[in-house]
Amino acid sequence: MTWETYLVEHQSQHQNELLQFLSIPSISSLPAHAADVQRAAQWVAGRLTAAGLEGVRILETGGHPVVYGEWLHAAEKPTILIYGHFDTQPVDPLALWTHPPFEPTIIEDRVYARGASDDKGNMFTPILGIEALLKTEGALPVNVKFFFEGQEEIGSPQLPAFIEQHRDLLACDLVVSSDGGQYSEDQPSLMLAAKGLTGVQIDVRGAKGDLHSGMYGGAVPNPIHVLTAILASMRSAEGKILVEGFYDAVVPLSEADRVAIAAIPFDEREYREQIGVSALLAEPGYTPQEHLGARPTLEINGIWGGFQGEGVKTVLPAEAHAKITCRLVVNQDPATIVDLIARHVEKHTPTGVQVTVRALPGTARPYLIPADHWGNQAAAAVLEELYGKEPYQVRVGGSIPVCELFLTHLGAYTVGFAFGLNDEQIHAPNEFFRLSSFRRGPLAYGKLLHRLAAK
Amino acid sequence: MTWETYLVEHQSQHQNELLQFLSIPSISSLPAHAADVQRAAQWVAGRLTAAGLEGVRILETGGHPVVYGEWLHAAEKPTILIYGHFDTQPVDPLALWTHPPFEPTIIEDRVYARGASDDKGNMFTPILGIEALLKTEGALPVNVKFFFEGQEEIGSPQLPAFIEQHRDLLACDLVVSSDGGQYSEDQPSLMLAAKGLTGVQIDVRGAKGDLHSGMYGGAVPNPIHVLTAILASMRSAEGKILVEGFYDAVVPLSEADRVAIAAIPFDEREYREQIGVSALLAEPGYTPQEHLGARPTLEINGIWGGFQGEGVKTVLPAEAHAKITCRLVVNQDPATIVDLIARHVEKHTPTGVQVTVRALPGTARPYLIPADHWGNQAAAAVLEELYGKEPYQVRVGGSIPVCELFLTHLGAYTVGFAFGLNDEQIHAPNEFFRLSSFRRGPLAYGKLLHRLAAK
Repeated sequence: MTWETYLVEHQSQHQNELLQFLSIPSISSLPAHAADVQRAAQWVAGRLTAAGLEGVRILETGGHPVVYGEWLHAAEKPTILIYGHFDTQPVDPLALWTHPPFEPTIIEDRVYARGASDDKGNMFTPILGIEALLKTEGALPVNVKFFFEGQEEIGSPQLPAFIEQHRDLLACDLVVSSDGGQYSEDQPSLMLAAKGLTGVQIDVRGAKGDLHSGMYGGAVPNPIHVLTAILASMRSAEGKILVEGFYDAVVPLSEADRVAIAAIPFDEREYREQIGVSALLAEPGYTPQEHLGARPTLEINGIWGGFQGEGVKTVLPAEAHAKITCRLVVNQDPATIVDLIARHVEKHTPTGVQVTVRALPGTARPYLIPADHWGNQAAAAVLEELYGKEPYQVRVGGSIPVCELFLTHLGAYTVGFAFGLNDEQIHAPNEFFRLSSFRRGPLAYGKLLHRLAAK
Repeated sequence: MTWETYLVEHQSQHQNELLQFLSIPSISSLPAHAADVQRAAQWVAGRLTAAGLEGVRILETGGHPVVYGEWLHAAEKPTILIYGHFDTQPVDPLALWTHPPFEPTIIEDRVYARGASDDKGNMFTPILGIEALLKTEGALPVNVKFFFEGQEEIGSPQLPAFIEQHRDLLACDLVVSSDGGQYSEDQPSLMLAAKGLTGVQIDVRGAKGDLHSGMYGGAVPNPIHVLTAILASMRSAEGKILVEGFYDAVVPLSEADRVAIAAIPFDEREYREQIGVSALLAEPGYTPQEHLGARPTLEINGIWGGFQGEGVKTVLPAEAHAKITCRLVVNQDPATIVDLIARHVEKHTPTGVQVTVRALPGTARPYLIPADHWGNQAAAAVLEELYGKEPYQVRVGGSIPVCELFLTHLGAYTVGFAFGLNDEQIHAPNEFFRLSSFRRGPLAYGKLLHRLAAK
């Protein structure tokens, strides 16, 4: 029997197992569900063992656990670490669910349940692909390590330390992530880049306390005026960032990069209508698409100071504050960006006020896998074979810290290889996963491992 | 007996009457004390009648009442309307009072009580001065109308309509206000000007809802960036207002005005230390003192938008808001200033956002009595006689709407003629009034009426 036949013959069994997996309410953000997260880990460990993986174990992290399993008998072949997560988002608002979120329900070849697409349905597919290979061919074309976590939906607080402490266990040549998706049902995509993140809070302090604007207005520096002038100096109306040195480390886009970005459909009008704005920004010299995916950003996330109530209060406030985050691209360094902003603010601070800039927690380095990386090319070839189309090379504006963690601690790039689709209501009521994707996933993983063996 | 001797002989009686008046808790802001405000009105009406005033009555306003009384037998002489208020501020925090606020206590020639300086002690002095004249001379040198209100501490909500509806009753040639004070115990002052007031709220709206800065940052207009750019365009770092046309109606300061302003001591270092700032602003071409008293101001009173909590939220907010108030000088018009700001904002609004400017309630016109006005000159002469020094001609940065109301509806300027001092803790715990001021007040009013007769 070929491994592909194995998959077809076991389809209904695998589907039943998925329903079982989805019925575990492994919500990582709610302490009351900690035991369910543990239960999901046990389910995954059991399923890895059944699939033929070795050394399967549940590892403690100090928070929700990690599940590990391996098959390392492909001498001279690369080692692939397959990543995913078995925890889920909460279900609020429960009233908007058509079916109970942890009673998975199949309707018209879709399975409805919390975690169906993100990420249980997706993370199950490489297990099944590898089981099919092991049960029919008795071996894998490459070495494989599975690394599933239970805290992705709460920002993986224990993961950085865990990965650093388990470098040897997790050592690999390439990471393949089962968390993510494709561009559409008939158009594949691969994630080439994700932005880094860094943030600051700016605090401006003037007089000892709030003052009466009639008694002091005009002669006493107003922290809100100072703050607005500082903030206005940081970005042009078109969106170009004016902080000195901000773009220095940015790797310029090549002509090929720009062609790849332009190849992805972008209906500006539809985009504008969807979010309800009449015009977009675009940094001079770049399209909105390039700005969104491949250029760094600086956004004021919040501002506050003085009187915010109804009516009038003629106060000259003592303080004003703002929070800023920047999305970074390779090779911008989060700490350097904070320093540059602090220097810019200092330069624009007038006399009579104290201004401080402090770094906010939660930074991430930008991530970019070279388009011609062997892992990326193998994944692209499999997707082209399955969809009959070249995948789009997508640069996302958000941050995916785990990619950068793997690169820093394991020296390995991550290829996103998953089959979720944009309409699948992840993090929202009535999340679902297409069973066509659930059938395609194991097949795609089987093909991918064969391709990767050719490295 | 001369009227001055009458005052000396009745001193202890007058002092006892003051304690009686101060024991009425006429807090206008607290509904539970409405009857006390009414009681204070009755006390004032009774005392006016006892002093020899005629036509004394309590007039309804729709809120706290007004007390009126007159003596109109000085044919061919000017009519003087004497203004004051018999309501008080609340007493919170009560624990900080050394003596109960409505059990007036005399210590070292000071009477401690809520309302002692603001304004019961002060408003009682013209009644006593006029009583002394009537009891000894049998007549007054001018026509007098008393107009005392009971809602000053809540912003006199019913007063504009009341004054407009009672133009004939209140008709006069000059208003003298018993609400206010002197520069110091040995330095007199007169209030020449008060600033007007107008305010706007600026609302900036971008996308339909808050957006993820990773998914939309860079390409979608951020209302906080737009707002900070608009606000930064409105005022220079030195404090010059950059709204086109803002200064057009301002009457320039004459050399004499500048000399009079510079004559008032101003210790910049002490001023800075008191409020805790290391440097002051000054509109180019003007001293901080000139800016404070005689130049218009534009202050952002409050700003808000997006995320204001702890930590990081990578939101691209849908809205941002700011409140601005301007203090105006003659002859700036509050409504015109709102229009100019709206036009400035419109000019600085980029595409992709909606920006609205709306006028805030609570405007006031600027007020200025010409320094050579006969009322001002008479008051100056009396003060010089009493203190042996020329009074400072003070321009206050705050707004005193009642002066402008009297000017608009009665066509009469207001001379501030009161004896409170800056350290008397008005609106704060342990308010007090110097009994030396309480003795000086009636004498000063007697002299003033004689001087005003010479017009």
